[in-house]
Amino acid sequence: MTVNVALLGLGTVGQGVYETVVSHQEELRQAAGESVRIPVILIKDSCKNRSISGDVEITTDFNDIFKYPIDAVIEAVGGCEPVYGYLRKCLERKIPVITANKELLAKKGSELMNTADRHQTELIFEASVAGSIPILYIIKNYLKVNRIQKLEAILNGTSNFILTAMRNNKQSFEQSLAEAQRLGYAEADPSNDILGWDTFYKTMILSELIYHRQPDWNDVVRKGIDQVTLEDINAAIESQEKIKLMATLSRSSNGSIKASIEPVRIKKDHPLYAVEGVNNAVRIKTDLADDLVLSGPGAGAFPTASAIMEDFVSLFKNNKPLKDISKKRRAVPLFK
Amino acid sequence: MTVNVALLGLGTVGQGVYETVVSHQEELRQAAGESVRIPVILIKDSCKNRSISGDVEITTDFNDIFKYPIDAVIEAVGGCEPVYGYLRKCLERKIPVITANKELLAKKGSELMNTADRHQTELIFEASVAGSIPILYIIKNYLKVNRIQKLEAILNGTSNFILTAMRNNKQSFEQSLAEAQRLGYAEADPSNDILGWDTFYKTMILSELIYHRQPDWNDVVRKGIDQVTLEDINAAIESQEKIKLMATLSRSSNGSIKASIEPVRIKKDHPLYAVEGVNNAVRIKTDLADDLVLSGPGAGAFPTASAIMEDFVSLFKNNKPLKDISKKRRAVPLFK
Repeated sequence: MTVNVALLGLGTVGQGVYETVVSHQEELRQAAGESVRIPVILIKDSCKNRSISGDVEITTDFNDIFKYPIDAVIEAVGGCEPVYGYLRKCLERKIPVITANKELLAKKGSELMNTADRHQTELIFEASVAGSIPILYIIKNYLKVNRIQKLEAILNGTSNFILTAMRNNKQSFEQSLAEAQRLGYAEADPSNDILGWDTFYKTMILSELIYHRQPDWNDVVRKGIDQVTLEDINAAIESQEKIKLMATLSRSSNGSIKASIEPVRIKKDHPLYAVEGVNNAVRIKTDLADDLVLSGPGAGAFPTASAIMEDFVSLFKNNKPLKDISKKRRAVPLFK
Repeated sequence: MTVNVALLGLGTVGQGVYETVVSHQEELRQAAGESVRIPVILIKDSCKNRSISGDVEITTDFNDIFKYPIDAVIEAVGGCEPVYGYLRKCLERKIPVITANKELLAKKGSELMNTADRHQTELIFEASVAGSIPILYIIKNYLKVNRIQKLEAILNGTSNFILTAMRNNKQSFEQSLAEAQRLGYAEADPSNDILGWDTFYKTMILSELIYHRQPDWNDVVRKGIDQVTLEDINAAIESQEKIKLMATLSRSSNGSIKASIEPVRIKKDHPLYAVEGVNNAVRIKTDLADDLVLSGPGAGAFPTASAIMEDFVSLFKNNKPLKDISKKRRAVPLFK
């Protein structure tokens, strides 16, 4: 038997997913119990050159994917529309969806999760937060007895790259941003990253996962790194500190959720002090396990494909056929 | 319904497990679907004072645990005998066993796993490696598509504490060991830790998990930290390096497994450079996720109890009653 997967999007991440499916057939067969094939890929621009095998249909019309007996959809397009409509259509047809789209999840996660619930299928999204670091997986599947007290995280590789470059090369914010763009670590319009929105969306997804709800967006401090000057960086160096764009998340004693995203100064003994360049890291403080720190690449074609493909094979737990997925296997509701 | 758990051992870890079961009833009920109770605890020395509730039987006779309708056994005694015999008896009665006993697992893991298989029950052991860091969980459950290329790890908190103290306080190995003993981080007989045996056992467990076999023990370099001098430490400082007791594990191109445990000098940009004191850390290099680093407390009552109790509730996956556990849910054989 073959599992047929439709791939939406063929940018950096989409290409990484495609290549991984081609190169990791043996691992996929072992984990999924069946071989995995991508018969159709949705793209935006039909004029670009692409290195995709000839037997894969490349289309700009979303509805073309339903010409194939699709068992799962991997979304690597990004943004809110038209993807929200695409994914709703897939879930309504009971097709499980794997996505890395943090903006869509932060804004429309509840609606999509409800749609998945109503049609007894799955919406999974490990890759949406912290690249290849299995932070959502650990929170969702592992930490069941531990009480999570606080979370601190560096979740935006672009911002961390710029802050690292400013410090190491003594160059301005503008110069460092230009370097990040030259190296492909920042987009032409970098505002989502440098204004803290990307970190904000990811923090909201973590809040849903841990507390089953988000804080009121108006109560969340959200500052980016665009106001950080070389003078700030130098002042931090003088006190043996570093500036990091830090997300924090906790629940106060009255039950309200507190979240913030802002550049902060951290000392040498802070567990996230050593996280440099495009890396991400999450520190989870719990009552039993104490301080757990997970770090790794926060973005990039293969690290993101890693999270997407490990998510994908998690659908095949207990060797059930994909059609028989039911909500039962998820003990804790996500995105109520 | 109530799940009855027999606890073997009431040292630091056993006490941590007992207190966690008392204090985390709500989390346990949510994760296990039933309340959890410890009706009987096996101890060695009946003369010690203990703060255990009066309705728990404290016994020095192992066979007393079978007076109760035991659903699972948590082992926190340590060492090879008489524990090996105890655990075999439990598994033969189809009682699932949760253990943190690295020496027993490295030496008798295959035999015990076979016994568990034959009697269709479970032997689980997250807590045996790296304290509360869910490294076995991630390897066993998450990394299915990724190809693990190499592993580097700091797995012995006592050794890392001593090396950190030598460096920070400019004191000799002997002084630092004495300090570790005073603080309860090293045992009266510290040879298991400082000669590298503890790290060796943990590395063998990781080898079983990743490669489904161990290297020939005679081919494994095993050096401890007992030969590290203050001069070595100072030489490392001069080159901006640190000395760490590092475990490495990989498979060479001819399929043979390579493992080593020895003090090595690592540079400032090494992902484990910042791991200090009694902390543990594991770096997994894979082909897709790239460099994942997990760090956290490597020992201690509650961090170890954390791993044991998260292991325990993992038995209740899919809301199956504990009696119906079958081997099916483990896709990859451990300890063949």
